[in-house]
Amino acid sequence: MANFAIMGFGTVGGGVAEVLRMNAASIEEKLGEPLRLKYILDVRDLSATPYAGAAVKDFSVLENDPDLDVVVESIGGAKIALEFTRRALMAGKHVVTSNKELVAAHGKELLAIAREKNVNYLFEASVGGGIPVLRPLFQCLAGNRIEEVVGILNGTTNYILTRMVKGGIPFGEALKEAQAKGYAEQNPAADVEGLDAGRKICILSDLAWGREVLPENISVQGISGLDLKDVSIASGAGYRVKLLGRAMKLADGTQCAYVAPHLVPADCPIATVDGVFNAIMIRGNAVGDVMFYGRGAGDLPTASAVMGDVIDALQHRGKRRELGWSESAQLTGFDKLVMPWYLRGGFTAPADCTALSDGAVVTGAMTAGEAKALAEKLGAEALLPVLQ
Amino acid sequence: MANFAIMGFGTVGGGVAEVLRMNAASIEEKLGEPLRLKYILDVRDLSATPYAGAAVKDFSVLENDPDLDVVVESIGGAKIALEFTRRALMAGKHVVTSNKELVAAHGKELLAIAREKNVNYLFEASVGGGIPVLRPLFQCLAGNRIEEVVGILNGTTNYILTRMVKGGIPFGEALKEAQAKGYAEQNPAADVEGLDAGRKICILSDLAWGREVLPENISVQGISGLDLKDVSIASGAGYRVKLLGRAMKLADGTQCAYVAPHLVPADCPIATVDGVFNAIMIRGNAVGDVMFYGRGAGDLPTASAVMGDVIDALQHRGKRRELGWSESAQLTGFDKLVMPWYLRGGFTAPADCTALSDGAVVTGAMTAGEAKALAEKLGAEALLPVLQ
Repeated sequence: MANFAIMGFGTVGGGVAEVLRMNAASIEEKLGEPLRLKYILDVRDLSATPYAGAAVKDFSVLENDPDLDVVVESIGGAKIALEFTRRALMAGKHVVTSNKELVAAHGKELLAIAREKNVNYLFEASVGGGIPVLRPLFQCLAGNRIEEVVGILNGTTNYILTRMVKGGIPFGEALKEAQAKGYAEQNPAADVEGLDAGRKICILSDLAWGREVLPENISVQGISGLDLKDVSIASGAGYRVKLLGRAMKLADGTQCAYVAPHLVPADCPIATVDGVFNAIMIRGNAVGDVMFYGRGAGDLPTASAVMGDVIDALQHRGKRRELGWSESAQLTGFDKLVMPWYLRGGFTAPADCTALSDGAVVTGAMTAGEAKALAEKLGAEALLPVLQ
Repeated sequence: MANFAIMGFGTVGGGVAEVLRMNAASIEEKLGEPLRLKYILDVRDLSATPYAGAAVKDFSVLENDPDLDVVVESIGGAKIALEFTRRALMAGKHVVTSNKELVAAHGKELLAIAREKNVNYLFEASVGGGIPVLRPLFQCLAGNRIEEVVGILNGTTNYILTRMVKGGIPFGEALKEAQAKGYAEQNPAADVEGLDAGRKICILSDLAWGREVLPENISVQGISGLDLKDVSIASGAGYRVKLLGRAMKLADGTQCAYVAPHLVPADCPIATVDGVFNAIMIRGNAVGDVMFYGRGAGDLPTASAVMGDVIDALQHRGKRRELGWSESAQLTGFDKLVMPWYLRGGFTAPADCTALSDGAVVTGAMTAGEAKALAEKLGAEALLPVLQ
């Protein structure tokens, strides 16, 4: 019998309990022993639910139970979740989470505690929801030097962009629709301003190159300022506008990570990923481009990834995953990245630029700094990077 | 210092040596120790190559070296490769392979030996080349009950089909082009008749449900009989013709696996996968659909997957992966599967059928047996399953 606990019984925590209920038999077959949900730590009253017998209010019950193997942290945020994760790891429990805010900000410290205590701190669900991407990145592709990771990391904004592109409706209206469908929060800032995608690209970057990249140190631009006009011009010119998180190892050995809406060529596999789906493309120097696609959020998809980690932790009791990242990465700022740019504003296309329609152009490769200067000089009303 | 050997220094074996040369420093960083290519076992004369010092001709040198940790089997086929794999595992070596023929036919036995000897037999490279798919399936998605696996598993046939669809050239001509480009063998039967895809869908099926499915027990149909007319009618009607391997768990608890060219709706993510690329879609009861995409063949992509397994085996010395499958699956024959069908041949569309062009129709859901009877009755010249 293996025992685990869920801390925080919201969408993700509830999903994990539901996945265990749905798949108890097949999970037991894989583990070679039954998996028991021993505790649910939550401030809510669970006495009227089927989980009444597992409900506890005091974290020290989990901490002091020598038979508890794994703790799922689905509290969210980086306050109580940080304290309880630290204490659970210190108490020798494996911890599994979907909490990207906590992993992005405190992963280095928490993985170091896990290493010291010879337990696992696993967080597959923190990026891409149910899509297996972190383990493939650090394990299956371990023979590669990773060159770039780029992806649609936030389903809410991808839904909004898909509605703008295919429905021809402006940002504000598409956001309201996403809220009505439950895809966007009432306070949608973390999604639409790119913060959520920023945390995820930091975690991907941490794992790809083993050096910490903190969300506050990267350039993050969301989609709230996006004009429907640019979405429509891009579509007509064979591009799709997508909010991408992107991280690269540059030729000088430094790294760059950022989030911004991009023009993506329509024949790029990422361009066709619509609605709430996510897709992450990883470029390795041996494998070339591989892409991972699926539902990036939702209770059961996220719980699928959490449960995969719980099973992995239990199968590797006493032998932790070699996982972690060290001191800060040396970062090159977004302003120094060289790529083509989309500019719009009724001017004549300068030399080296491809004219689209309505006075919009795609420039040759130049830095963001140069592109901004050009945009100012021309009086451009819109400036967006173009993925190559 | 960790030591490994390569048996069979052809395309894959050479690729593995090349990946180590390219990425020795990052691999050492991940392992925490240098990785040394100690032996290359091959009948070829390697004395004029940089690998002369590692060349051996006698397998027992590998078998009897207590310092040898991992053996890469890239011999191919199921004769010498089977004998050497058995003996390497018996000698307590981890074995890593890309040999789908061997894994599909003898995986059960070899995994049982690995279990007995507490070593790993790993074969990520046997399906999807460099694309991480087997480990995500058995590990990241372990919390799911898998419902279906379907994919483009063979790059050669996907290249040929892409040329037929986009270039409008018939099968024979597209095959010659693929041969000229080195994508197809001079004897292309294993690819174009679907045998290669058949082995891969068996391995996916073995891992998804833990019961052995042997290639000789499943229905396999290739693309050599495909008429350009059907490819073109399908394209005009919003479908793409793709050679798919497909495996399912049916409602009655039995399984089905088969390979056949399908009409795939153009908005299905698999439909847009072109050229030599592969894509595998996995449906889990918690995660929904996830898809894995990338290069399904080639020396470096395949070597990327092999090297990932070598690193994994070395990181888990003494703690093998829980991996294996048991007695034969209970199979439902392809003829009993219910799905819609494409029929062509100058007849009027029967009731419940959707008319395409040129007297082609897509039927309602029926079994392959019923579809064949209907095709005969109508005198249809073509019959293909339609993916829903």
